Amino acid sequence: MSTYKPEENIEQNPRVKAVFDDIRKTRNSEFINNMWYYIAFDEDLLETTWADVKRVMAEPTVLDPLTKEMLYLAVSIANSCAYCVHSHTAAARAKGMTDAQHGEILKIVSLAAKTNHIANGLQIPVDDVFDKDKS
Amino acid sequence: MSTYKPEENIEQNPRVKAVFDDIRKTRNSEFINNMWYYIAFDEDLLETTWADVKRVMAEPTVLDPLTKEMLYLAVSIANSCAYCVHSHTAAARAKGMTDAQHGEILKIVSLAAKTNHIANGLQIPVDDVFDKDKS
Amino acid sequence: MSTYKPEENIEQNPRVKAVFDDIRKTRNSEFINNMWYYIAFDEDLLETTWADVKRVMAEPTVLDPLTKEMLYLAVSIANSCAYCVHSHTAAARAKGMTDAQHGEILKIVSLAAKTNHIANGLQIPVDDVFDKDKS
Amino acid sequence: MSTYKPEENIEQNPRVKAVFDDIRKTRNSEFINNMWYYIAFDEDLLETTWADVKRVMAEPTVLDPLTKEMLYLAVSIANSCAYCVHSHTAAARAKGMTDAQHGEILKIVSLAAKTNHIANGLQIPVDDVFDKDKS
Amino acid sequence: MSTYKPEENIEQNPRVKAVFDDIRKTRNSEFINNMWYYIAFDEDLLETTWADVKRVMAEPTVLDPLTKEMLYLAVSIANSCAYCVHSHTAAARAKGMTDAQHGEILKIVSLAAKTNHIANGLQIPVDDVFDKDKS
Amino acid sequence: MSTYKPEENIEQNPRVKAVFDDIRKTRNSEFINNMWYYIAFDEDLLETTWADVKRVMAEPTVLDPLTKEMLYLAVSIANSCAYCVHSHTAAARAKGMTDAQHGEILKIVSLAAKTNHIANGLQIPVDDVFDKDKS
Repeated sequence: MSTYKPEENIEQNPRVKAVFDDIRKTRNSEFINNMWYYIAFDEDLLETTWADVKRVMAEPTVLDPLTKEMLYLAVSIANSCAYCVHSHTAAARAKGMTDAQHGEILKIVSLAAKTNHIANGLQIPVDDVFDKDKS
Repeated sequence: MSTYKPEENIEQNPRVKAVFDDIRKTRNSEFINNMWYYIAFDEDLLETTWADVKRVMAEPTVLDPLTKEMLYLAVSIANSCAYCVHSHTAAARAKGMTDAQHGEILKIVSLAAKTNHIANGLQIPVDDVFDKDKS
Repeated sequence: MSTYKPEENIEQNPRVKAVFDDIRKTRNSEFINNMWYYIAFDEDLLETTWADVKRVMAEPTVLDPLTKEMLYLAVSIANSCAYCVHSHTAAARAKGMTDAQHGEILKIVSLAAKTNHIANGLQIPVDDVFDKDKS
Repeated sequence: MSTYKPEENIEQNPRVKAVFDDIRKTRNSEFINNMWYYIAFDEDLLETTWADVKRVMAEPTVLDPLTKEMLYLAVSIANSCAYCVHSHTAAARAKGMTDAQHGEILKIVSLAAKTNHIANGLQIPVDDVFDKDKS
Repeated sequence: MSTYKPEENIEQNPRVKAVFDDIRKTRNSEFINNMWYYIAFDEDLLETTWADVKRVMAEPTVLDPLTKEMLYLAVSIANSCAYCVHSHTAAARAKGMTDAQHGEILKIVSLAAKTNHIANGLQIPVDDVFDKDKS
Repeated sequence: MSTYKPEENIEQNPRVKAVFDDIRKTRNSEFINNMWYYIAFDEDLLETTWADVKRVMAEPTVLDPLTKEMLYLAVSIANSCAYCVHSHTAAARAKGMTDAQHGEILKIVSLAAKTNHIANGLQIPVDDVFDKDKS
């Protein structure tokens, strides 16, 4: 149920092929998920989006790969992105997420949503001690 | 800028005092942040909200306390809850979040938002391999 | 903290005055809240927004006035609209909302947010019995 | 299109069976909707979510059952939860929601969304009279 | 996957037929998209929604028709409305949106989402020069 | 009301100074808005965010600069980002947005929000003709 249909043989475009090859190499897998096929109609969008994802998610940083996927999943849930919930649940599992961790993420995400709505519902003022402009 | 003004001396209510005492004991701190003062007008809301927060966030579970706070913060950002962004940034720092980790959370959260909007913008279909109803 | 500053003496504009007079008459009050001052720079926006609000909220319909305000408040919380949370909390109180009802609205709104995030988090499939295209 | 596939015979788990039996008894119906099957993989998530829903929605409180379902539905719409919109539309109908009430809910929810975006779009300042920190 | 099934022969209702005829005439096309069939159960919702859409989107105003559709699409993406993303992508294409423009809209929408989350994540204070209440 | 306080003399950091100098040069103005001061604590976040904004918003592309700012503003409103609504309203005005255009943007954004909530509220099925997977 998409608004765009990727072209056949899109890898005949050398800019697309270069990105797809880098995705395969970086992930050490032949599989390219739909995200990349569907944005490939705009090479610039494809190249810059992959560069962002690779830099933030695939390269070693201060947070471990599973924690990063869990954060990505949490935001995707809150933003109601069905595709991203699917792809990042799969990615988190591939990086070792257990059922117990999955259940706990859901508990934290849904509790946060609950208190987010309470705090917004009463427009609770920020404590001075939390406000760096006042401290 | 709130829609409700907590009563003075609200701890004279024994149900409120019991919750506040448990918050102080659990957190090992005299400080009670505004969240609890502002919802104390409804004792049931106060008691059940604290019970949830204590069970999910304060008790030992499969995820470590800092990871839990980071997930809570990520959701609060996505849900545009100013109060919660403040209180959970403070909580994450209290549990050891460094500037480098804070910066990385922002990079992941904002990247997720970016691809959330791209995937929703094209209504990209979920790959069969991600869909457990098909596998 | 607005992005627009209403003009002084904006009621010298007869189209604005006509709307403001109708607000006063409909609400039986001299008070005009900021919403109407801030959108008055575009007479068409002012007239059509007031016409909508009057038709849906001020005229007698199948739901009673307090239930309507509570629904408006619930949506305003979920959409993170600080101004609207304030104005519709005040409107609900003016129509008789008690503290007990206010607390209960917050419990329902925050519980809904919680299960909304769980259902989106697992992408739970809709039961056939709920789907009118299948029944 | 889910990210998790419930196990067969999940009621062989006594903690799951206890919750499912209580759902059946509370609702006076044999039908268990997907929500509960899909979260049953984490017994704690199942038990605490059902306890919340039962306490807030199924037990007698100051608001009547239909008003509570309408508020739940309104939030689920604003949070873009397809599953929840379906299940709570069905629940509201089961509690007597007429077509005329359904249409009116949609008018209120969509009008609220409209003015939420106008108020956020201009960042309209909250009237002093609405702000309990000032009054 | 809808929560409501439109009646057969809904145009036998003269109020519905009048709106449908005006949609066909305004758009110079026999095609009526699902939106209008699904809301036709409430004639008032149908009439007022079409009146709004016609006035804002179909009549000549200061912005050109394609720019208006692009703005509509951008909001629909941010609000996670699958139906609206589809219908307004189609409408934008019908008004001349090229692939290059479509790609650029996605770049702007997703960049905005990215910086929206960064600014909300740090609760960056509004510069005095942007605040009309201070200038 | 921020969660982070920028260091004094942050431009003594050469990576920060390089970005700030490029912002000044690109915008042909000495003014640096808070966004950049507040994210400068993480040089990588600063550099990559500015690179994105410059590439998408400041360089010549298929859409004109004002249309791009209007799209950015529309998304920022829908995502409830107060800071971004302020900064991009100011940017749009600097690029020539008139009051009439501002009013019209608000009409389109708020109408889109209205129909987004109606379509999500009824879970209206996408017309086959809009679905590129079916055509």
